[in-house]
Amino acid sequence: MRALWLEDRLLGARQDVPRPVPPPGEALVRLRLAGVCATDLELVKGYYPFTGIPGHEFVGEVVSGDALVGRRVVGEINASCGRCPTCAAGRRTHCPARTVLGIKGRDGAMAEYLVLPIANLHVVPDPVPDEIAVFAEPVAAALEVQEQVALRPGSRVVVIGDGKLGQLVARTLAHAGHRPTVVGRHRRKLALLSSLGIETASSDGLPPREADVVVECTGNPDGLAIARAAVRPRGTIVLKSTYHGEVTVNLSGIVVDEVTLVGSRCGPFAPALALLAGGTLRVDDLIDERFALADGVAAFAAAGAPGVLKVLIHA
Amino acid sequence: MRALWLEDRLLGARQDVPRPVPPPGEALVRLRLAGVCATDLELVKGYYPFTGIPGHEFVGEVVSGDALVGRRVVGEINASCGRCPTCAAGRRTHCPARTVLGIKGRDGAMAEYLVLPIANLHVVPDPVPDEIAVFAEPVAAALEVQEQVALRPGSRVVVIGDGKLGQLVARTLAHAGHRPTVVGRHRRKLALLSSLGIETASSDGLPPREADVVVECTGNPDGLAIARAAVRPRGTIVLKSTYHGEVTVNLSGIVVDEVTLVGSRCGPFAPALALLAGGTLRVDDLIDERFALADGVAAFAAAGAPGVLKVLIHA
Repeated sequence: MRALWLEDRLLGARQDVPRPVPPPGEALVRLRLAGVCATDLELVKGYYPFTGIPGHEFVGEVVSGDALVGRRVVGEINASCGRCPTCAAGRRTHCPARTVLGIKGRDGAMAEYLVLPIANLHVVPDPVPDEIAVFAEPVAAALEVQEQVALRPGSRVVVIGDGKLGQLVARTLAHAGHRPTVVGRHRRKLALLSSLGIETASSDGLPPREADVVVECTGNPDGLAIARAAVRPRGTIVLKSTYHGEVTVNLSGIVVDEVTLVGSRCGPFAPALALLAGGTLRVDDLIDERFALADGVAAFAAAGAPGVLKVLIHA
Repeated sequence: MRALWLEDRLLGARQDVPRPVPPPGEALVRLRLAGVCATDLELVKGYYPFTGIPGHEFVGEVVSGDALVGRRVVGEINASCGRCPTCAAGRRTHCPARTVLGIKGRDGAMAEYLVLPIANLHVVPDPVPDEIAVFAEPVAAALEVQEQVALRPGSRVVVIGDGKLGQLVARTLAHAGHRPTVVGRHRRKLALLSSLGIETASSDGLPPREADVVVECTGNPDGLAIARAAVRPRGTIVLKSTYHGEVTVNLSGIVVDEVTLVGSRCGPFAPALALLAGGTLRVDDLIDERFALADGVAAFAAAGAPGVLKVLIHA
């Protein structure tokens, strides 16, 4: 089958990849649409030593997989063992034996076919277009912030980063009734937020040490310093960015100010899909370019260009 | 008056320091006993550019200060403005205009006399000896961990560091019914904990990624890596150490494992004093050496020697 293939930090388009055969309990899914995520770009840069088919944001049609055959689905990306203490404690996305779609130990979605455990799949309601449903995974990741941090009415929330993830974090926060301020550098991206009534600022324009909660979504090591300057004593910084490399941190300052840092990764699919199905969370304006699977290498190049938001790859 | 004096990272004993005159709302306190804290040693190393009399752990007798005259007291170390939004929000220990006894903008306790706001003072119950009451400040700091992190019965708690702070954190946790494991390198210090029924381990002996909560009390940059290896996904690391310099951290790993880091500093005095007055929290075995104020420089040298726990300075 046709697939993108990542190996030794080189991404290529292949036509000779064997169609996967789902093991018991897993479904074979024919791709309809995939999204390029910042994590995909980081994988190419060597953030994690992955070899195989990348891609973890998708909409597809179930080819084999019990009662779901013929249904349009999105899918949770962590495939857990379901039996270990971590799974038993309800932390399945942290199962030490997990594989992760297109990220760790499991081929991803940027191919004609993919496989995932049937239990990971969520049926997409008929009226929801593919180009909206494909945002289920990143919207779930954005909602994880609200799962982890108790926001109150009136909480002063700042989102650092106006890229794909920052946009979705800010939009889901605003949708839940909060009033985030988004810090970014790109006039066009900030304008998208302004048109939705979301406040924006430059990092210089933020009042220092006032935010109750800061969500760091820049995808690069500079974001933490901006977050640190903005958060109040005893405030919380949610870390959403994963990137290659380490960061130098003044931990004593975090002790003195009693700041809390919370790492935040994958989130709940069902509420994400419900939000998208409701039609009140706007995401279509985040789509910048569309490519065919055969042009997937060009899709990655486009997604990595400055100022570009979501790039989609159709089967 | 006689006082220790820190200037340009040099500590000296002086006899010519003017006796302080308390401003309105503050008390003049005659020192009875002071404790040397790791933060005092870090100040000498240049952790914070403080010039003046060091020392923030003390027991004294009120010389002038309204109704408290003649009473034996300990004192909260942060002197706040009481009027700013931070104070109004109940975060007085984070007041941006605060001074801190012997640490920031305010002379400390290692002198014949000190001054502190009357509101900061807590009367020591008569039966509590000076050498127990002097632990009020560090015990309060240890209790701050339980103020910040919701521990449950059965929570797996690890304390990294068997020094003064690690000892008090572990002992206050055990006193509250938890069963901490303390990781340390000093046989004698670990034996003190064992004799109190507290479990100890070497860093190699810790099960990886199992602890719900890890409290980092080593006072040096190596502690974080041990804490990180011990904490489970979605677990919490409480940072108690302040030290000079920065630390390199893999923040992406913290995102992937959704770990929470919580900075933790000063804690509540009233419960600390009540605990010490109750006599069921043992601290006397932590006292290693006693010096006169005139020999304060030697006291600091003793406190900085490897393996030494609490050093006291009497007036």
